[in-house]
Amino acid sequence: MKAVVYYDTKDVHIEEVEEPKVQEGLVKVKVAWTGICGTDLHEYLGGPIFIPGDAPNPITGQERPVIMGHEFSGVIEEVGGDVDGLNVGDKVCINPALTNNLHPDPLYDFYKEGTFIGLGCDGAFADYVVVPKENIIKLQDSTSLKIGALVEPTAVALQAIRESEMEFAESVAIYGAGPIGLVTVLAARAAGAKDIFVFDLSNERLEKAKEFGATHILNSGENNPIEYIHKFYPDGVDRTFEVAGVPITLEQAIQSTRPRGMVTIVSIFERAIDFNPMLLTTSGVRISSTLGYEPDIFEATVKMIESGQIDPSPMITSEIELDEIIEKGFNQLIEDKKQAKILVKLSGEE
Amino acid sequence: MKAVVYYDTKDVHIEEVEEPKVQEGLVKVKVAWTGICGTDLHEYLGGPIFIPGDAPNPITGQERPVIMGHEFSGVIEEVGGDVDGLNVGDKVCINPALTNNLHPDPLYDFYKEGTFIGLGCDGAFADYVVVPKENIIKLQDSTSLKIGALVEPTAVALQAIRESEMEFAESVAIYGAGPIGLVTVLAARAAGAKDIFVFDLSNERLEKAKEFGATHILNSGENNPIEYIHKFYPDGVDRTFEVAGVPITLEQAIQSTRPRGMVTIVSIFERAIDFNPMLLTTSGVRISSTLGYEPDIFEATVKMIESGQIDPSPMITSEIELDEIIEKGFNQLIEDKKQAKILVKLSGEE
Repeated sequence: MKAVVYYDTKDVHIEEVEEPKVQEGLVKVKVAWTGICGTDLHEYLGGPIFIPGDAPNPITGQERPVIMGHEFSGVIEEVGGDVDGLNVGDKVCINPALTNNLHPDPLYDFYKEGTFIGLGCDGAFADYVVVPKENIIKLQDSTSLKIGALVEPTAVALQAIRESEMEFAESVAIYGAGPIGLVTVLAARAAGAKDIFVFDLSNERLEKAKEFGATHILNSGENNPIEYIHKFYPDGVDRTFEVAGVPITLEQAIQSTRPRGMVTIVSIFERAIDFNPMLLTTSGVRISSTLGYEPDIFEATVKMIESGQIDPSPMITSEIELDEIIEKGFNQLIEDKKQAKILVKLSGEE
Repeated sequence: MKAVVYYDTKDVHIEEVEEPKVQEGLVKVKVAWTGICGTDLHEYLGGPIFIPGDAPNPITGQERPVIMGHEFSGVIEEVGGDVDGLNVGDKVCINPALTNNLHPDPLYDFYKEGTFIGLGCDGAFADYVVVPKENIIKLQDSTSLKIGALVEPTAVALQAIRESEMEFAESVAIYGAGPIGLVTVLAARAAGAKDIFVFDLSNERLEKAKEFGATHILNSGENNPIEYIHKFYPDGVDRTFEVAGVPITLEQAIQSTRPRGMVTIVSIFERAIDFNPMLLTTSGVRISSTLGYEPDIFEATVKMIESGQIDPSPMITSEIELDEIIEKGFNQLIEDKKQAKILVKLSGEE
């Protein structure tokens, strides 16, 4: 089968590899669609970060090279021994998080030593992938597999809402209208935010945020987002999400938030920034963050998508073939800020 | 009467001033003891910070000069109109926090526009001070007025425990064994911490921390505090308090804390630091902070001191006269790291 194999920074190849085999407790999935994640770009441009470096991944035991791809959906092709309730032909999406299951809080484990299918071991930029049965979530027959590939990034945003301790009918600001920023708008809307401010440097992205449910959008390169928020909320909003990962936005996020509110970091910072902790001590604003998701949040994401409560599908800006992943995938996302989510078509089943 | 009057950076004088007068809702207190706070030093060395700058304080309306002193106790000398339940001769300590009382959460108000008696208006480095009746907490007759002057800094530490969301029988680390670090040890002990690690650069301070109830002390200039904690808690402690306010300690505090734990900042940072938010996103550690206290925490502090549950009195390292405040107070605290709390004797009543 064909697969996207990661060797090193900018050393990623489309190769013919052997099909993975099922074993006890494992399930072979015929991949339908796999999304390209910002994390994939970080690995491509500056990795290995989450992909194994000099040593095997401590959870999976896998060394490089690794088949990339962790946002995916597909159809069950084959089922290993000791797998109940999953059948050949089932439409599924996959929670790619892998931990050692040592602690009652799965995110505790995750932060200690977590990894993802498609980073810490072979993933789904390939025709087939074999995954543990516990990581499989069944989709309804009527659910599109394309939207199934969007569950993973959407779950990141739902977890961010939980980490923000947001309450019903609160006000929200979001710095950054990339793919995760957009699903954060959806998640905030689903959680009952009364107002959702979105800031970005790109007017196209901001228009997209409006489509997703932002009530106020502003180009924060051209205007001062804090002054703008203070026009509507003189003390600042209740919850702010930092989804841009650049030095200025963490400071702006804190200054946009009311006393005793919360800033939740949902981005990857590539380097240290200049930061004055007095922004916190003089405002009582707290900081939380998210990177992964609890299993119940992943399942809730599937349910909310299937009920129509949230619809991340307008984030798809492009669909490409596996062969095109470098040029029309990675490079396109780096160069064209209008791109949000690019899906790679494997079987392409709907 | 004599008073310590703040004009500007290093421009602080002991002067003869008029005695303040009671009015409706106000109470005149004959000051017994007033502690010197780190904030006083910041004002002396680099202020005005909380003391009014070019404009009057928005809550009190007072302009500079201001009589300093906000950690104090005394005896009621005279009571204004519309004051019930307070009588001449009552032993009292004073919650110096002043807000506009607009929001149900007093700390919300405080962060928006709070100030302190002794910073935003005349305070208690003076023989008499006049304060609003709401700010007075009665002490038992048997409570020493010296310990009454320690309620305020102790309340900061109790509030820090609340902001840390610490639970019973958790593990705690504290970076910094100055006066607030020491009362944080007391507060953590009172809240049922099972282990309390304290780090500082001064062995004398660390010995003091041990007296206060630290279970593990380490000179973090000579040894690596993170490695030390990991010997006992491989994942890190549950709650860490950053009470030093220097660049390295915030990073160390986060690295000392278990996944999904909390770092609480209880210090004043004088400038921005280099900080990588990935320390949070890869650990799930959250950040909270404290600067003030809720009224119920201030009252709880008095009760816990009066019941003997906490005893901050060993933090007193020196007692001086008002005339000596610059030389034996401010300058001594700046130069001699063995000093913790210096009390200024006004009436000196026990």
